[in-house]
Amino acid sequence: MLCVGLDPDPAKFPLHWRGDSSKIFEFCAAIVDATADLVIAFKPQIAYFAAHRAEDQLERLIAHMHRVAPQVPVILDAKRGDIGNTAEQYAIEAFERFGADAVTLSPLMGWDSVQPYLKHHGKGAFLLCRTSNPGGGDLQNQRLADLPGQPALFEHIATLANSPWNLNGQLGLVVGATYPSEIERVRALAPQLPLLIPGVGAQGGDAAATVRAGWRGNAQHTLAPIVVNSSRAVIYASSGPDFAQAARAEALKTRALLQACRVLAA
Amino acid sequence: MLCVGLDPDPAKFPLHWRGDSSKIFEFCAAIVDATADLVIAFKPQIAYFAAHRAEDQLERLIAHMHRVAPQVPVILDAKRGDIGNTAEQYAIEAFERFGADAVTLSPLMGWDSVQPYLKHHGKGAFLLCRTSNPGGGDLQNQRLADLPGQPALFEHIATLANSPWNLNGQLGLVVGATYPSEIERVRALAPQLPLLIPGVGAQGGDAAATVRAGWRGNAQHTLAPIVVNSSRAVIYASSGPDFAQAARAEALKTRALLQACRVLAA
Repeated sequence: MLCVGLDPDPAKFPLHWRGDSSKIFEFCAAIVDATADLVIAFKPQIAYFAAHRAEDQLERLIAHMHRVAPQVPVILDAKRGDIGNTAEQYAIEAFERFGADAVTLSPLMGWDSVQPYLKHHGKGAFLLCRTSNPGGGDLQNQRLADLPGQPALFEHIATLANSPWNLNGQLGLVVGATYPSEIERVRALAPQLPLLIPGVGAQGGDAAATVRAGWRGNAQHTLAPIVVNSSRAVIYASSGPDFAQAARAEALKTRALLQACRVLAA
Repeated sequence: MLCVGLDPDPAKFPLHWRGDSSKIFEFCAAIVDATADLVIAFKPQIAYFAAHRAEDQLERLIAHMHRVAPQVPVILDAKRGDIGNTAEQYAIEAFERFGADAVTLSPLMGWDSVQPYLKHHGKGAFLLCRTSNPGGGDLQNQRLADLPGQPALFEHIATLANSPWNLNGQLGLVVGATYPSEIERVRALAPQLPLLIPGVGAQGGDAAATVRAGWRGNAQHTLAPIVVNSSRAVIYASSGPDFAQAARAEALKTRALLQACRVLAA
């Protein structure tokens, strides 16, 4: 269930590379190599590359991920959301330029802002639904007056992604680990959809409650998957030259915790 | 009131450059040179650069805009929206790397996804409020059950941007020209905020209705400004070698139309 998120901030790099943005690829690739056999997905966050003029390193990194772990999908965390014409360009960026297998999207602009991504067969899109940050509820928890049962906005997004928008089974949802009861609600509304769940680790989400709320799979984990992301807790596990081994140790620990929670939840 | 939007798609370039993504800077710079005395803002759309691995050309383009027209602000249309740590990286991308004066943002993730941009003094952020695309209403028009008067989501965004979120007067709103009655509603809720209004031109928005709905300024246009964007109608006005002159002619026509509408609205 574990996804390792790559949010490479040179200011937090191991001491011998600290502040050096030319080491972004090397830093991330070392963590990929150390954790590839432990994860079901990698999730690079594009902002950390863009801030450092390092799109070329992101291209190399995703190619490296595909080479080292061809079976592990790469989710480009970009949270794009724009009108159709522009969405087509962003889809080219994510899927063709960077070679990602899936992308995160903001659904605020509606159906035609999501649809262009779905023309890319074999690719997926995770829609922001209930995000893990403190302000996530500012809009997402507002209840909608004119819909039956007055669902919250995030529940409406889950309903749209589950059925009318999910023409070819390419959609998933982003639901923060910081709100397990809302993961449970989303899982009820979208019983089969993959859930990308950030917020375990540095953001303080409770792994056991997360797995209990979201996991409905069979033993092979082919049904209703949950993709539990940890970024900072893994990649900054050590600031020494042992950072990659420390990342592996932290990933092993988190994976074991998630597996134990799954046994308890089953 | 006119803003020229730069959405450079090599597939639509003048015939002698068609399909050549190495000409993105040259194409855009020619349009900037031909229209700089006519506009109150330029709005490059980052997706069109990112799809073609042309971030370097975007950097050069914005530097060129500042050189040719130092008084004209550059709005980077990026529609970012992410948790605080990541938003800090995107703010660095927009304001430091690209040197934009303002950026468009999606407010779906709430206050802490907007706040990091406001730490950059002298910079602005336009929040998506009621967008010009067909699906814009899917979520933005949903009425909120628990707020007084059950405002639509876009009205709630306007209210948040007008007051609790706008600590230092750095916020504006994006409202599509395709929905003049909703521009009017946003203007009533946010009487002083700059409104960025795309959708005039290729998207079919009615210029007269737009100006009537949004313009409340004085003759110097210093109060409650509206920034009316036209992209495709201007930049693809001709597919011949005269594309820059044709863009100027179209920009002149649109500007004259907006000015006439302002006289009528006053």
